[in-house]
Amino acid sequence: MADYTFFFNPMSRAQIARWALHEAGADYESVHVPWDDRPRALLDANPMGKLPTIIHHSASGDHVVTEAAAICHYLAEQQAPELLAKASEMADYFRWLFFAAGPVEQAVTAKAMGWQVPEDREAMAGFGSFDRTIDSLDGLLSGRDWVVGGRFTMADVYVGSQVDWGLAFGTMPERESFKAYAERCRAREAYRTAKAIDEKLIGEMQDG
Amino acid sequence: MADYTFFFNPMSRAQIARWALHEAGADYESVHVPWDDRPRALLDANPMGKLPTIIHHSASGDHVVTEAAAICHYLAEQQAPELLAKASEMADYFRWLFFAAGPVEQAVTAKAMGWQVPEDREAMAGFGSFDRTIDSLDGLLSGRDWVVGGRFTMADVYVGSQVDWGLAFGTMPERESFKAYAERCRAREAYRTAKAIDEKLIGEMQDG
Repeated sequence: MADYTFFFNPMSRAQIARWALHEAGADYESVHVPWDDRPRALLDANPMGKLPTIIHHSASGDHVVTEAAAICHYLAEQQAPELLAKASEMADYFRWLFFAAGPVEQAVTAKAMGWQVPEDREAMAGFGSFDRTIDSLDGLLSGRDWVVGGRFTMADVYVGSQVDWGLAFGTMPERESFKAYAERCRAREAYRTAKAIDEKLIGEMQDG
Repeated sequence: MADYTFFFNPMSRAQIARWALHEAGADYESVHVPWDDRPRALLDANPMGKLPTIIHHSASGDHVVTEAAAICHYLAEQQAPELLAKASEMADYFRWLFFAAGPVEQAVTAKAMGWQVPEDREAMAGFGSFDRTIDSLDGLLSGRDWVVGGRFTMADVYVGSQVDWGLAFGTMPERESFKAYAERCRAREAYRTAKAIDEKLIGEMQDG
């Protein structure tokens, strides 16, 4: 049995987890989940049936991880400590990982859904406003190549995916810093390997 | 100088960070930030001016951390490793920490704002639907006392705060599992110490 079972659909946030699996060099088997037919093993692991979901078959038993950002970080913890933050990088690593999983995700979703935060209620919404959230990320990426500074870490798989997808779907504006960062991410060998697998599957689905 | 500078307003998510500071036994100085007058030191650290924000004055320099969940985890990493997850607890710790910071935060905000996810777009919103998100958290807390099982970790400061606040503001339903978990959290000595500080400040603001 592989170390990880990976429940995915190629047209979903599961692409983030596949990139992370390849960055971490994890041994995994894939279970392709159609939107309208979730297997019992997935629902047992995660009653919400959300993708991606992974099961880690470890020495201490089977462990389920959901949430794309949690999966990225967990895989680095278990498989690739060199992709974790050093002590001096840890503040940036966790700050921006949670910023992308919280405010950025929320701001992009609100924009896609056409939801507006009333100005007098910005303190209540964790992301404040779309523009302030985007400006904040732009500020970070204008000053450095990667989340923690000069080197790639697992935080870049998640933050980079948010930027890559945001540009691809037009839910984030085409700032120069975003385009340059997305290009750096797309040049990663693990990104290209993972993307090729998902694009091949998407092509087969569209042909079939 | 204290190890940490803590920018807060007592009527904000900064209460979560103060609880975490006390759980971690951190040496901190507080900067009380009025909503309409953010100090330059805060805006330099975090241009969004969001609260809570902490600055860690460490041997490797000053490090800024924002996002309540990131602050909780960072403080455990730096100050209180016994509140981190052991290897066998790590999947639950990160899964539910990110679940609370992402889907739960998003679902509660959407409810507070009166936003509805159209049924055919649930896959696009990270939280799917409010009910499925709440049911998922209920499922977790019906089966165990704490996020990782039998012991309190830093994940409970963040997940517990979401439940505590959700019940207090009526943005989460009064499920039995939520009420019992919130009671366990409120019994923590660090919770009570932190809460007393913020409530005293809120009382002074209302008197003045």
